[in-house]
Amino acid sequence: MKSETLNELLAGLAQTFGDQIPFNKLVGLSIDKVSVEEVMISFEMKPELVGNFMQGILHGGVIATVLDVAGGTLAAACLMERYAEEHSLEEIAKRFAKLGTIDLRIDYLRPGRGERFISRATVLRAGNKVAVTRMEMMNGEGVLIAVGTGTYLVG
Amino acid sequence: MKSETLNELLAGLAQTFGDQIPFNKLVGLSIDKVSVEEVMISFEMKPELVGNFMQGILHGGVIATVLDVAGGTLAAACLMERYAEEHSLEEIAKRFAKLGTIDLRIDYLRPGRGERFISRATVLRAGNKVAVTRMEMMNGEGVLIAVGTGTYLVG
Amino acid sequence: MKSETLNELLAGLAQTFGDQIPFNKLVGLSIDKVSVEEVMISFEMKPELVGNFMQGILHGGVIATVLDVAGGTLAAACLMERYAEEHSLEEIAKRFAKLGTIDLRIDYLRPGRGERFISRATVLRAGNKVAVTRMEMMNGEGVLIAVGTGTYLVG
Amino acid sequence: MKSETLNELLAGLAQTFGDQIPFNKLVGLSIDKVSVEEVMISFEMKPELVGNFMQGILHGGVIATVLDVAGGTLAAACLMERYAEEHSLEEIAKRFAKLGTIDLRIDYLRPGRGERFISRATVLRAGNKVAVTRMEMMNGEGVLIAVGTGTYLVG
Repeated sequence: MKSETLNELLAGLAQTFGDQIPFNKLVGLSIDKVSVEEVMISFEMKPELVGNFMQGILHGGVIATVLDVAGGTLAAACLMERYAEEHSLEEIAKRFAKLGTIDLRIDYLRPGRGERFISRATVLRAGNKVAVTRMEMMNGEGVLIAVGTGTYLVG
Repeated sequence: MKSETLNELLAGLAQTFGDQIPFNKLVGLSIDKVSVEEVMISFEMKPELVGNFMQGILHGGVIATVLDVAGGTLAAACLMERYAEEHSLEEIAKRFAKLGTIDLRIDYLRPGRGERFISRATVLRAGNKVAVTRMEMMNGEGVLIAVGTGTYLVG
Repeated sequence: MKSETLNELLAGLAQTFGDQIPFNKLVGLSIDKVSVEEVMISFEMKPELVGNFMQGILHGGVIATVLDVAGGTLAAACLMERYAEEHSLEEIAKRFAKLGTIDLRIDYLRPGRGERFISRATVLRAGNKVAVTRMEMMNGEGVLIAVGTGTYLVG
Repeated sequence: MKSETLNELLAGLAQTFGDQIPFNKLVGLSIDKVSVEEVMISFEMKPELVGNFMQGILHGGVIATVLDVAGGTLAAACLMERYAEEHSLEEIAKRFAKLGTIDLRIDYLRPGRGERFISRATVLRAGNKVAVTRMEMMNGEGVLIAVGTGTYLVG
C-alpha cells in the first residue's frame, strides 16, 4: 500500500470518528490529527460540560471521554496500518467492529479550567492483539489537566 | 446530629448532584439512592449516548462518566457524614468545593447494550483524606457491563 | 474431558506455580486452592518482606506480587479449562507460554500488618483473548489490606 | 535551607531506602539517583527474580516492586523538599511514617528479558496531600518493558 493510501484511510477515520459517533458530537470533539504515532483532539468549553457547578470546571466524565476517544482512535489507526495493505475494506470493517477498550485509567491532576482543551495520544505498544496508549489533556494555556492510559483489543 | 438530619442532607445531595451538574443532565443520570454505604444511579439509553454506531452500544465515555458520578457521590456522602455533626453548612460547602477525583479505573467487560442501565457504588475505604470506592454498571437484564474503582480526595 | 481430569490438571497447575516459579518461592507463597472460579493464596510474614521498617509492615511490592500471582493463576486455570478437552499437553504448554499480564491495578487500603496473609482472586470475565480478574488480600484477622484488578492475555 | 542541605538529605534518603528496606535488599535494588524531579533505580537479573521459568523472564511482581519503589522514593523526595526548610528532623520523620502508596497501576509492555534493568520515576503532580508519579522500566538495551503510575499520600 502506498503511504498516500494509508493517509487517506486515516483521514477517513478521523472524519468518521468525529462525525458519526453520536457521543463525540454531543461533547463537541474535533479529531484534528490522526497518524499511526499520534492522535490530537480538541474541544471548546461549553456550559453542558461542567461538572463542578461551584467552580465551573469540566466534568471528570468529559475528561475520561476525551482520553478514551484519543486512545481508541490511535488504536484504530494502528489496526488500519496493519490491515490496510493486505485486506479488503470489508475485512477491515469487520476488524473495526471488534475493536474495543479493555480498560482505561485516568489521573486527574488539576481542575479542568479553560476555554479550549487539547488531548494527545501516543503509542506505548501496538501488538497483534492488544494496543496500549498513553493520553494527556491540557487547556489552552498548556496546563496539564489529566493523563491516562488505555488498553485496547485490536485482534 | 440525628440520623434524620443526615438522611435529609443526603437526599439534598442526591438532588443537587442530579439536577445541578450540567453534564449529568446531558447524559440523563438519575441518582436514585444515596447512603453512606451505597449509591445507585440509573439512566436510559438514547441515541446521543452511542459510541459504536455500527453496533449501537454505549460510548465508553458514558460508562466512565456514570461510574465516576456514582463513586464521587458516595465519597461526598461519606464526607457529609463526617462533617455534618460538627460543622456549619458553610464549612461543609467549603469541604465540598475541594472534593475531587484523584484517579479512576474502568474495566470494560461487555458491550454496553440495553435500554436501561444501573450503576452502583460501594465503599472500599473512607479515610480522613482519601476515599476509595468500587463501582459496577449493569444493563436492565443484569448483565455486568463494566466495573471500576475511584479514588477521591475528601480532606 | 472428565472433570476429574480438569481437577488433576488444576492441582498440577497449583503445584507448578507454587514450586517452580522462583520469585513465588522467594516470597514464600502457598497456592492453596485453584479452581476455574477462584484462587486462594497464603503466606506468612517474615522480616525480608517488610517495606516500612519503622512500622514493620509489608512492602507494597509484596502485595502487588501476591495479587498478580492470584489473578494470573486464575487466568491460567480458565485457559486450562478452555483447552484441556480438545488439545494435547504440548498445545496447552504453548498456550501457557504466551499467557501474560497485560496490566495490574492495586489499591492499598490499609497497612499490611499481620502474621499471615490470604489473597483471593475471582473472575470478572474470562474471554477468548483477555481474562479480567479481581483480587483482594486480607490479614489473618480478616482486615482488608488491598484490592486489585488484573487483565491477562490468554489467547 | 540551602540546596546543599536538601541534596544531603536526598542522598540520605537514597541510602536509607536502598539499605534499610528489607524487601528492596531481597530484590537487589540500587537507588542510583534521587532528586525532586527524578529517581533512578537499577538492579541485576538473578535466578530468584524469575517468574516465567520456561522463558526465564522477570516476575511481574518484581516489576511492580521496582516501579513502586521508584515512585515512592520520588514522592518522599518531594515531601522532603517541602518540609526540609521549616521543620525539624523529628517532624519530617513523622511525616515520612505516614507516607504511603494509595494506588499503583502497571502496564506490562514486553517480556522482562535482560541482564540489568533500569527504572525511572518522574513527577506528574506534587500536591500538598497527594503526589502522582509516572514510572518506566527498561532493560540494558533500552527496550521499554513496563510503565506505571503511582499515587502517594504525602500530607
